[in-house]
Amino acid sequence: MTYCIAIKTLQGIVYCSDSRTNAGVDNVSSYSKMHTFDWPGNRTFTLLSAGNLATTQHVVKTLSLDIENNAERNLLTVDTMQQAADYVGMLSADIQKHQAFRDTANSNFEASFIIGGQIIAQPHELYMIYPQGNYIYESPAHPFLQIGETKYGKPILDRVIRPDTALERAARCALVSMNSTIRSNATVGSPIELQLYVNNSLQTGRTLVLSEEDDLSRKISDKWNEGLLNALDQLPCFPWEMPDETSKCDESANLVDQAS
Amino acid sequence: MTYCIAIKTLQGIVYCSDSRTNAGVDNVSSYSKMHTFDWPGNRTFTLLSAGNLATTQHVVKTLSLDIENNAERNLLTVDTMQQAADYVGMLSADIQKHQAFRDTANSNFEASFIIGGQIIAQPHELYMIYPQGNYIYESPAHPFLQIGETKYGKPILDRVIRPDTALERAARCALVSMNSTIRSNATVGSPIELQLYVNNSLQTGRTLVLSEEDDLSRKISDKWNEGLLNALDQLPCFPWEMPDETSKCDESANLVDQAS
Repeated sequence: MTYCIAIKTLQGIVYCSDSRTNAGVDNVSSYSKMHTFDWPGNRTFTLLSAGNLATTQHVVKTLSLDIENNAERNLLTVDTMQQAADYVGMLSADIQKHQAFRDTANSNFEASFIIGGQIIAQPHELYMIYPQGNYIYESPAHPFLQIGETKYGKPILDRVIRPDTALERAARCALVSMNSTIRSNATVGSPIELQLYVNNSLQTGRTLVLSEEDDLSRKISDKWNEGLLNALDQLPCFPWEMPDETSKCDESANLVDQAS
Repeated sequence: MTYCIAIKTLQGIVYCSDSRTNAGVDNVSSYSKMHTFDWPGNRTFTLLSAGNLATTQHVVKTLSLDIENNAERNLLTVDTMQQAADYVGMLSADIQKHQAFRDTANSNFEASFIIGGQIIAQPHELYMIYPQGNYIYESPAHPFLQIGETKYGKPILDRVIRPDTALERAARCALVSMNSTIRSNATVGSPIELQLYVNNSLQTGRTLVLSEEDDLSRKISDKWNEGLLNALDQLPCFPWEMPDETSKCDESANLVDQAS
């Protein structure tokens, strides 16, 4: 399994991905799922991948080879972010079909991608590409996209992320979303990769690779736990409740007795 | 879909369930998924249910009828909580088989249950019953059980719930877990039922039914949002970061520059 998030805000794009891959529980490895292609000053793309590793590696390899070989369609020749998404979707669907053709065991070759970035004189954008090769983009009402094991880390994004969220704040939120997912699902794991792309910079953003033992990872996890416990202490008391040291609550928010 | 949680702490048991049922997106209703059977001073059981509504209603009805008819095995004749779980599991599996026997469309009749409670002179316990009729119990390392749409609301429980968590605090945590799930999944919905069973009280615990418009529901949702935003503000700054009003962070937790 995998968990990748991309968040688009007015200030730029945050990308965050885990690195665990597994083919069964006894075949666990670590591979990067974040790939950046950039031509500073002209365009930059970052691809996040989830699903069958042979498919995703093949797609990434083909993207590189198409650039090297000056293929008619490559990441340098596409005119828009949508064309880039369409290109990746077409590659992914073709590669899956090719693999299925060889297969005799009804295997699953599906892969999903998020591609984000910016082409000079155009806005920064994010697309999520389904295994079928079609794609959707973010919107102001839903300024983030996720692939892989998306549920554990979604509530915090739903509550916090808005188009005007500051880039670093969005990045911290992504790290918390990732941290929650890693705690709850054994198939999502460190190191975590994080990139903060600044709108109109047209180059790879600041990038961090955080292992589990990393100071920043541990501090975020510890501080977040502490913050959640504090947040719990601020919730309203139940009508009958006498708060004490082991169960703090906000008495001022106390309510009419509704207990039966 | 459905979301139900039961948390066992040293002080007692918290039960929390939503009320939405749906058979397709255009057939949405509201049914209680929390059923309590009690003989005050002797024993009390609370059943939470998820899955096929015909199956869960049939199980609940049969539990009542077996008591009325003094069946050899009923909730009043079982000697232990485990026997109660076994009885519910057997009923559920039988009813599913019975329904499948009539079916020609390969329909899904599966249902899951959580049963919790206490029998006089025995400890309070929780069991989760799988559609197959087998069951597991909680443990000090994992003092809560969930059925239905469990993922969105799990991280907060993972971080907060311990056997020594105070009962009211555990109940607030269950409400937050439910609130996150309702926000993220349209098939989980209000009203929310909440029961706080106090260990050794041997009677139905305090019970609240919270609609969406309910003051307590809204205050919990608003206060929790506020608390999460505060928790985000307490996370460490990135090494390069200059915090400001739109992106607060804890500068004292600042770290060695790891940016590339």
